[in-house]
Amino acid sequence: MKSLFQQDLRVVNVGLQGFADNIVSAGGVATNLSWAPPAGADAALGWTLANMVGDPRIEQANRIAYERYLAAQPRLVDLVLARDAMPALAERRILHAGPPIAWADMCGPQQGAICGAILYEGWAKTLEAAEAMAASGSVALEPCHAHGAVGPMAGIISPSMPVWEVENTAAGNRAFCNLNEGLGKVLRFGANSPEVLERLRWLGTEFFAAMRPAVKNLADANLKPLMAQALHMGDELHNRNAAASGLLFKRLTLSLLGCHLDSGVIQRVLAFVAGNDHFFLNISMAACKSMSDAAHGVPGSSLVTVMARNGVNFGIRLSGTGEQWFQAPANPIDGLYFPGYSIADAAADLGDSAITETNGLGGFAMAASPAIVQFVGGTPTDATENSRRMLSITLGSNPAFTLPALNFGGTPAGIDARLVADSGVLPIINTGIAHRRAGVGQIGAGITTAPMACFGGALAALAKTLPTLPGRAS
Amino acid sequence: MKSLFQQDLRVVNVGLQGFADNIVSAGGVATNLSWAPPAGADAALGWTLANMVGDPRIEQANRIAYERYLAAQPRLVDLVLARDAMPALAERRILHAGPPIAWADMCGPQQGAICGAILYEGWAKTLEAAEAMAASGSVALEPCHAHGAVGPMAGIISPSMPVWEVENTAAGNRAFCNLNEGLGKVLRFGANSPEVLERLRWLGTEFFAAMRPAVKNLADANLKPLMAQALHMGDELHNRNAAASGLLFKRLTLSLLGCHLDSGVIQRVLAFVAGNDHFFLNISMAACKSMSDAAHGVPGSSLVTVMARNGVNFGIRLSGTGEQWFQAPANPIDGLYFPGYSIADAAADLGDSAITETNGLGGFAMAASPAIVQFVGGTPTDATENSRRMLSITLGSNPAFTLPALNFGGTPAGIDARLVADSGVLPIINTGIAHRRAGVGQIGAGITTAPMACFGGALAALAKTLPTLPGRAS
Repeated sequence: MKSLFQQDLRVVNVGLQGFADNIVSAGGVATNLSWAPPAGADAALGWTLANMVGDPRIEQANRIAYERYLAAQPRLVDLVLARDAMPALAERRILHAGPPIAWADMCGPQQGAICGAILYEGWAKTLEAAEAMAASGSVALEPCHAHGAVGPMAGIISPSMPVWEVENTAAGNRAFCNLNEGLGKVLRFGANSPEVLERLRWLGTEFFAAMRPAVKNLADANLKPLMAQALHMGDELHNRNAAASGLLFKRLTLSLLGCHLDSGVIQRVLAFVAGNDHFFLNISMAACKSMSDAAHGVPGSSLVTVMARNGVNFGIRLSGTGEQWFQAPANPIDGLYFPGYSIADAAADLGDSAITETNGLGGFAMAASPAIVQFVGGTPTDATENSRRMLSITLGSNPAFTLPALNFGGTPAGIDARLVADSGVLPIINTGIAHRRAGVGQIGAGITTAPMACFGGALAALAKTLPTLPGRAS
Repeated sequence: MKSLFQQDLRVVNVGLQGFADNIVSAGGVATNLSWAPPAGADAALGWTLANMVGDPRIEQANRIAYERYLAAQPRLVDLVLARDAMPALAERRILHAGPPIAWADMCGPQQGAICGAILYEGWAKTLEAAEAMAASGSVALEPCHAHGAVGPMAGIISPSMPVWEVENTAAGNRAFCNLNEGLGKVLRFGANSPEVLERLRWLGTEFFAAMRPAVKNLADANLKPLMAQALHMGDELHNRNAAASGLLFKRLTLSLLGCHLDSGVIQRVLAFVAGNDHFFLNISMAACKSMSDAAHGVPGSSLVTVMARNGVNFGIRLSGTGEQWFQAPANPIDGLYFPGYSIADAAADLGDSAITETNGLGGFAMAASPAIVQFVGGTPTDATENSRRMLSITLGSNPAFTLPALNFGGTPAGIDARLVADSGVLPIINTGIAHRRAGVGQIGAGITTAPMACFGGALAALAKTLPTLPGRAS
């Protein structure tokens, strides 16, 4: 100690810059490290986290979950009616995006979309009757994720809607997603006018009848290579799907032409697909659901397998905590609004489409998609930095999905809730913005984050499961 | 002078670093400027250049040429047989890539492709007879560029081949390019086996008959927006055309389905287009030819309107020097070779496809296409730097073609031969590599440059025209 004060001071300062500044102004040398307390200085979460970092049971569980995620091989196997895909939809039930939520608590677009689905199913004749029916509780309302499905924005799936069926052939699990209706007035943004219902009816009849054999007849139904190729063509597979939609269009066209269908039908079906650069989004989502579902259910794993929003709350699930949701109010969206709209018009963050970010795509893969900043805001440099930053909260990177702008490094793969809580780096999400009133539709797009409270809650729940696991903390 | 030596030395050193180093080591301060003599220290060219820089006649001519280039609106208007498109092909004539060259001087792939075209036309029955016919001079061999056309690699166009017809609707000029046959053994790489000729015959008959009405029936035949979109999807529109080919596939499909054709024909035609990610290249080239042709023929302009290679020489043309070619031996290609091949197997740089670089695409637009480095070599950072460097030798940037990675700045637009000679920065070209023997085909791809001697020669010729122009140097 005595000798310390006889030497020149060489200080490493951790945290607040001010302490280092004082030393420097007194003629000393100080290196300042940027540092903040882990867990956002939440003492309880900090202790939970301290007990979980390096726990070999969690490490081992995450390894298993991560390997199952990387091994997944999603394949587009069918287009089926929801009631035939999911047993729960044999009854009068409607699925919605995000964590569970009661009708009365739902945001405008989700209520509007549910009323539209009730009309589409013919369970009510007027919007007023549909609303009364939904409010009465006589239609069961449950999350898509509770039934192996996902849906963008309002995420409504009702029994007569066709859903894409994607199989992860590595593990045999299946996932479903509804059809993308295009932009403008569409059910997923809460619109439910006659034109919206008319389009849904066409999708459920002529389109479904033609597309089903085409899907089953695809020469190449493997989605991972297609998605990888799209990442090299400027898509991030959440808000930019132009390349993937184009690649799928090619495959569907060649398949449809071999199905001996009426040429007028083929023309109408292909014109619809060609006119919608987001057509692939819902298939991307089903593929993602099938990949992260493969990683779900590993006891002790802190891997995030679901991130989803219901327009009020943001919810996540961990691999190791089963069907439990960990929710918090959705963070605001930093976005670009269409002319005439502003943040005051916006619904809260909405949709199951954050399943793409859960799988390292969307906001996590923005380095692949510099052009997306014209849609969601920011600069191409921000886009690249977003991908780099997300690598700090994932277990690794996905060699199947490479990012040219990161010198062909893989997409961030496998969000570890511990890394999020420890670093304070929140998962970033590219998202569409719905008008808060039902029926208006999309009013912009932007970037948001998953709320920290979800991760804190999830880790606390995971910590409670640890004593039940074989093995001990080292 | 006396006071100078009483002050502290503050030196700016131009050129060799060594002089600055000496001053610094003696305790002085020196700023070193990286500098090299203009015109590669070629005194004659240096004087020519000195007299041309800032010449208001050249500046004014370049402004006119540049505006015509930017104003061009290429539109895909037809697919026609070459003999109906170009009067010169009513006779027994074959067009080839690059500047004029005699049969005996041609490289292997170009000779091989010409023999293939003679067989395709039925002018000879055997390869030996075709070769004898070509050597005898009884078939006229002329550059594509002499007839408003372009062709990739060997660039062979014979009378019975279909050619794309692109009209620049802003000025009414038209340009032509042959069809892309796909990869592997194809005529443009000098292959001429029965399978190559069989494919050409199918392209000239069934494909041509089906595609012609589809082209004329296109709902949107404008190429500039399509190309701009492809630049946002990872294409540079020379060696990567996957996005543009996909966008065109969509348009052609919808058009073909409206043409009341046999469904088997439609299937075969669309399968061919879908299977070739370079399908759009030849349309990109015709579009480029129509854009830079619009800028051609402005007296006094130093704008480069053609860069093309015949497998021996590289040739350029300037807007202000009419039909003259300025040639030099092609520079070597720094490339990636397919397994089993090396630079020893490579033909010299070949093809009219450098018309894409002449128009600010290809190597000039590599910032749009980080993934292309897997094909031509280098890193994504190199790709971006290439685009930045090319901006130093162009008159401006093209607002119609933006590069996300350069924060949506335009592609380098309008190569000024003066800027090339002054800076020594050579136009960069992405290119395929053909085997030097006829019939083998493509063996790799890489990056090369236009030789400096072309620009020196062109500027010397342009200088001779200046006294004939109205106005005087200031």
